[in-house]
Amino acid sequence: MEYFEDIAVGDTDDYGSYTVDAEEIMEFAGQYDPQPFHTDEEAAAESLFGGLVASGWHTSAITMRLLVTGIFPETSAMGAVGVDELRWPNPVRPGDELHVETEVLETEADYRPGVGLVRSRVETFDAEGELKQHFVSRALYGQR
Amino acid sequence: MEYFEDIAVGDTDDYGSYTVDAEEIMEFAGQYDPQPFHTDEEAAAESLFGGLVASGWHTSAITMRLLVTGIFPETSAMGAVGVDELRWPNPVRPGDELHVETEVLETEADYRPGVGLVRSRVETFDAEGELKQHFVSRALYGQR
Repeated sequence: MEYFEDIAVGDTDDYGSYTVDAEEIMEFAGQYDPQPFHTDEEAAAESLFGGLVASGWHTSAITMRLLVTGIFPETSAMGAVGVDELRWPNPVRPGDELHVETEVLETEADYRPGVGLVRSRVETFDAEGELKQHFVSRALYGQR
Repeated sequence: MEYFEDIAVGDTDDYGSYTVDAEEIMEFAGQYDPQPFHTDEEAAAESLFGGLVASGWHTSAITMRLLVTGIFPETSAMGAVGVDELRWPNPVRPGDELHVETEVLETEADYRPGVGLVRSRVETFDAEGELKQHFVSRALYGQR
């Protein structure tokens, strides 16, 4: 079990993979982000994107899935209070195989009694190494 | 049709409502954020939250849904390049009826040829006015 005290600035990790298809892109967007370039392949082909692209929030959700599956069973992680500088530099397209890389930027031991704060850089790439999303997370970890 | 030129600093708007139930909270989290306090009512009752709570990313997705449904049919909005200072100060629980309030903070006319950038404060509340999420969006709007 990994606690706050086991986490150091500069620690890196890699989580993956998750392949997203057109059906899932349109299903997520149909419920939460119904813009034509997310929900309709023909309209998407005529948009600036030239084809179907995932909602940025869908990319965030997939990133969270990779983090939770990869980190949480083995740690005292208690979720995040927030995220800074969330950016979507390139769109996620059907068939993209995503993975996530993290690096610890800063730790704060006295966030709450028994709880430390960990700021990490979180980057999401496709299999060719194109950066799809990046943000800085503010996650809480239990202490020993 | 509302273009970039029609948007001014200080403009406010209100979008709602979306009521989230336990089934949707568990379904979203089961796929994208499978932590026990999001996916299992019994485990959630024994957690720090004292009951089932929605994934923060689910709150973001619902907020996007309210924005897209409310804004996009009538404007030249082209999605967002990113989000700053995303925070979840209070958890969303089953039965919460969410609405969203926005305020334009800053506009930048020369982001790209024909495209302006609009920074807005986006806040998500429940029916009792408890703040569930806030962030600053960086959205793109087409120009006349």
